[in-house]
Amino acid sequence: MSNALNQAIQYAHENQADFLDELKVLLRIPSVSTDPEHKPDMEKAARHLAEKLNQLSFKNVQVLPTSGHPVVYGETLRAGSQAQTVLIYGHYDVQPAEPLELWQSEAFDPQVRGGLIYARGASDMKGQVIAVISALESLLAVGGLKINVKVLFEGEEEIGSPNLDSFMQSHKELLACDFALNPDGGMIAPDIPTIIYGLRGLAYFELRVYGPAHDLHSGLFGGVVNNPAQVLCELIAGMHDDQGRITLPGYYDRVRPLSNEERAEMGRLNMGESFYKQQTGAPELWGESGYTPEERLGARPTLEVNGLLSGFTDHGSKTVLPAYAMAKISMRLVPDQDPTEVHQQLRQYLQSRGPKTVRWELDVMAGGPACLTDRNLPATRSLARALEVVWGKKPVYKREGGSIPVVASMQSILGVESVITGFGLSDDAIHAPNEHLNLGNWAHGIDALVHFFYFLGEAQ
Amino acid sequence: MSNALNQAIQYAHENQADFLDELKVLLRIPSVSTDPEHKPDMEKAARHLAEKLNQLSFKNVQVLPTSGHPVVYGETLRAGSQAQTVLIYGHYDVQPAEPLELWQSEAFDPQVRGGLIYARGASDMKGQVIAVISALESLLAVGGLKINVKVLFEGEEEIGSPNLDSFMQSHKELLACDFALNPDGGMIAPDIPTIIYGLRGLAYFELRVYGPAHDLHSGLFGGVVNNPAQVLCELIAGMHDDQGRITLPGYYDRVRPLSNEERAEMGRLNMGESFYKQQTGAPELWGESGYTPEERLGARPTLEVNGLLSGFTDHGSKTVLPAYAMAKISMRLVPDQDPTEVHQQLRQYLQSRGPKTVRWELDVMAGGPACLTDRNLPATRSLARALEVVWGKKPVYKREGGSIPVVASMQSILGVESVITGFGLSDDAIHAPNEHLNLGNWAHGIDALVHFFYFLGEAQ
Repeated sequence: MSNALNQAIQYAHENQADFLDELKVLLRIPSVSTDPEHKPDMEKAARHLAEKLNQLSFKNVQVLPTSGHPVVYGETLRAGSQAQTVLIYGHYDVQPAEPLELWQSEAFDPQVRGGLIYARGASDMKGQVIAVISALESLLAVGGLKINVKVLFEGEEEIGSPNLDSFMQSHKELLACDFALNPDGGMIAPDIPTIIYGLRGLAYFELRVYGPAHDLHSGLFGGVVNNPAQVLCELIAGMHDDQGRITLPGYYDRVRPLSNEERAEMGRLNMGESFYKQQTGAPELWGESGYTPEERLGARPTLEVNGLLSGFTDHGSKTVLPAYAMAKISMRLVPDQDPTEVHQQLRQYLQSRGPKTVRWELDVMAGGPACLTDRNLPATRSLARALEVVWGKKPVYKREGGSIPVVASMQSILGVESVITGFGLSDDAIHAPNEHLNLGNWAHGIDALVHFFYFLGEAQ
Repeated sequence: MSNALNQAIQYAHENQADFLDELKVLLRIPSVSTDPEHKPDMEKAARHLAEKLNQLSFKNVQVLPTSGHPVVYGETLRAGSQAQTVLIYGHYDVQPAEPLELWQSEAFDPQVRGGLIYARGASDMKGQVIAVISALESLLAVGGLKINVKVLFEGEEEIGSPNLDSFMQSHKELLACDFALNPDGGMIAPDIPTIIYGLRGLAYFELRVYGPAHDLHSGLFGGVVNNPAQVLCELIAGMHDDQGRITLPGYYDRVRPLSNEERAEMGRLNMGESFYKQQTGAPELWGESGYTPEERLGARPTLEVNGLLSGFTDHGSKTVLPAYAMAKISMRLVPDQDPTEVHQQLRQYLQSRGPKTVRWELDVMAGGPACLTDRNLPATRSLARALEVVWGKKPVYKREGGSIPVVASMQSILGVESVITGFGLSDDAIHAPNEHLNLGNWAHGIDALVHFFYFLGEAQ
């Protein structure tokens, strides 16, 4: 190991406790982007990260306003114009913590138990953000950073990044780079370093069904008026057939079929049904007929009900025929589905299936296409080498079930590919109560990022 | 008009404002029986009614405990053993007021606007309770009450009267009577006095569907785990066929078919589709094929979704695959359906249709059978005469869509028929925001009850 790399790793190990403290500080800020009440916390998180970049002697550090939550930018370009420039993406916003009563410790009071740190955002993705910052700090401290680094931390990933595309469009020059690093991916298992090369897209909707003008007594009117909660259930039930396929018109038309080669490769990732049962606690698995769990997660689109609300939902009974029913419905998309087309397909489905006994409204909440990235980038090879050094085994390449719409946006707007990795695990309960991050894995991740940045500097 | 009747009506008219004040006092007590937080209000409402009976010089006035909310009892038996004894039923509990934000004025701060009094319980049934008390007061004030009266006000009607049957069983002697008056019915329209002779029963359930052990990220697990919200929708959607018929096994086996005579009679009540559209604000009507709206409401069973809850329901978006989904489901039953059998039919349906990818729980929240009463009781004829005097037209006889399980219980436990009337209207928004009562109708109702009680005394 070269001297500078060696020193940087030593620095990282010696400062492990400080890195953890930094993570805790960030986790204590309840930066929930979807909730207007947390707007001051969003500002606070952004300013905190900007301050952190300043401490690392980054230049041109700015908290840049958008129509929504601000973007944090900073750069260190001392490696010179001959060196590679990497744009590191991250987001400082988190999902809502509700239902709060299911958390074993407070969502925004990080607690370490059994080698795991519990807090909203621990895995998605404040832990990843602090891992990147810690790796950069370790290299900068020993003079080992031989690449140019630009950092972009957004505050709206969890609400679909509504302002990021226009921000990138108006800051193309500022963000110019050779490639992007996106550490918002994850690992298959603690002992399997993972490089993500495909991501599903997302199309998120709110569907509202309206029946009578106000709630009715179910005895006085039950039998003459259609119940919007029942209609909503019927509409949702019709969205899948009995093979687990989605029935929206034309939904699969653009879905890129899996090649035999891809299926063979995905077969090598086969975790087995028991793995998913254990991770989820579901009594039995479920999904589209004819595909393995890995294929369904990585390469097939889905349609999920994310929320349902209608009528009386408290303890006890109320014989109400509700005036209104609401569902949050989202789809994970695969190449080459288009979120805008999918929106039209859902609308067509509702137009053809929605009865005249109710009226309905459909709002688009978020959307972004799926993407596949080039697995043969030099930077990806450097990442693979770094992961192999730290874990002692070659990484696997995976198409991921989640969505990182910014990867497709960076392809189209900045013209750059993203290298996607991350050190979260699929049972970290992200977007759920008791989100946590494995700290052993996280420490390995910091080491891997130190190696990665160092190898990128060597490669020039 | 006889002198005493004349004087009683004059008393009622002169004291109209006081009666309204009495109603307001009762409406200000938020006696929501389903909510444990309102237990003190339940006690307060019961004690208030007992005090009111004492003011009318009722004897043996008691607030009698049950396992749930207390029963108020009082009697005035001065007419002697030769006179008829009527047991007047009422309930002092009300439905929850939620959703509170849809009320134009506070649910428990009664307000008069445009001849209507707005408050939770105004129509169902504090207005009816005060109408009965006001009519009795008017007759007692002029020495015109020539019958024996027993009063029973319960506090658990809106939660299915779980303790009333055992109360009646252990107080048979106290409650002995010739017939019961139940003013918890309603009128078809302000100009159509109505006598109810049939009521639907009720079977109310809470269905909970559990999938994964905790909420999951819809990207990381969407496509391998069945979504309990989707399963709940599929189960509910399957409960009706495309003719609006209920698919639970054996559900219609005991439903008493409508005779041609009954259908002809119901045809005379035909209000027209526009009537129901206007009352409900629904874009179009809906219901079981082959039956008119009146037949569907009065003589056919229904199944309604009263509430739905799952996952993320706030503003914005959260890509959660929920662990849990809940529905409140209730059925209005007709003769000779049995609530216990219906529970088994629902359970069978869930056992045969519920997939192994989830588990479910079903709780019974309330239940009572439908009933038909004898239309040719002498007391019913007295009521018809009273209604005709006050409204200037003969009453119509109707089978009602709502449920008053106590009517069947009084048949079986006390061996007495009920005379069912009431002065609420079907657009009073009972069980809904902005519940109200038409005060002109209410004043007519007090007059009609004065006549009714007076005619009962004459008839001896």
